[in-house]
Amino acid sequence: MFTMNSIGVIRSPYSDTAQVPKGPGATHTAEGTLEIHAEMQDGLTDIEGFSHLYVLWVFDRASGFDLLPTPPTDTRPHGVFATRAPRRPNPIGLTVVALVRRDGLNLHVRGVDMLDGTPILDIKPYLSSVPIEHLRRGWLAEAEGR
Amino acid sequence: MFTMNSIGVIRSPYSDTAQVPKGPGATHTAEGTLEIHAEMQDGLTDIEGFSHLYVLWVFDRASGFDLLPTPPTDTRPHGVFATRAPRRPNPIGLTVVALVRRDGLNLHVRGVDMLDGTPILDIKPYLSSVPIEHLRRGWLAEAEGR
Repeated sequence: MFTMNSIGVIRSPYSDTAQVPKGPGATHTAEGTLEIHAEMQDGLTDIEGFSHLYVLWVFDRASGFDLLPTPPTDTRPHGVFATRAPRRPNPIGLTVVALVRRDGLNLHVRGVDMLDGTPILDIKPYLSSVPIEHLRRGWLAEAEGR
Repeated sequence: MFTMNSIGVIRSPYSDTAQVPKGPGATHTAEGTLEIHAEMQDGLTDIEGFSHLYVLWVFDRASGFDLLPTPPTDTRPHGVFATRAPRRPNPIGLTVVALVRRDGLNLHVRGVDMLDGTPILDIKPYLSSVPIEHLRRGWLAEAEGR
């Protein structure tokens, strides 16, 4: 068993999951702030050089898990590890955000899909992309095609 | 505080961090296997439709953390949240792998950079990429240029 503690908290325009854009064609352009705890400040050194960041966070308002959820993008169930569903064995969320501006302990970002007050576990620089022409997106591509 | 449990374990050719390609120009083409625990099997349903996966895992052989590590790609220290360094406040690793083949509970993948026996926390489908022309890579691009 592994124990984790938050390194900060997310400020977002969403207070309820119903407000977060979901389903086919959903885009994430909402702005928010990653408020990092003061004792972590040195860990932010040089982060402003990166255009995009991975944010790892906790689905703190989900409980339990469902191995075969039906996602909002489809009418059929899929394995949880083939979805971004919140009720996961380990409730960790992963979001790619664009870093707009750093202001001390606050990272102003674009592309949040988390609820206001969500605990942050980690931030990593986004270093490389898989070329889109190499991607296969399984059931999601099929559902979008229907 | 949040507690996490492994959903499986990584089989990789690396038993020591010194064997993992690191530093400027390192590429990750090693093949390995994600061995998922039997009780998680339903969660793998439909995963074979995806060409690439995010693997979230634990740096289980790192201890403590360093907010200003000097990464193998540079001679200067940088904030840990601007690096992929292992000694992090929450020791979670994130790797993008290509899914080669599924064999029941075993996902054969390419692109592992984890040590053999590493605990897996989560797997998510890789759905979209940031276009390379939109990426800025801060200190890493500077270090590569030197």
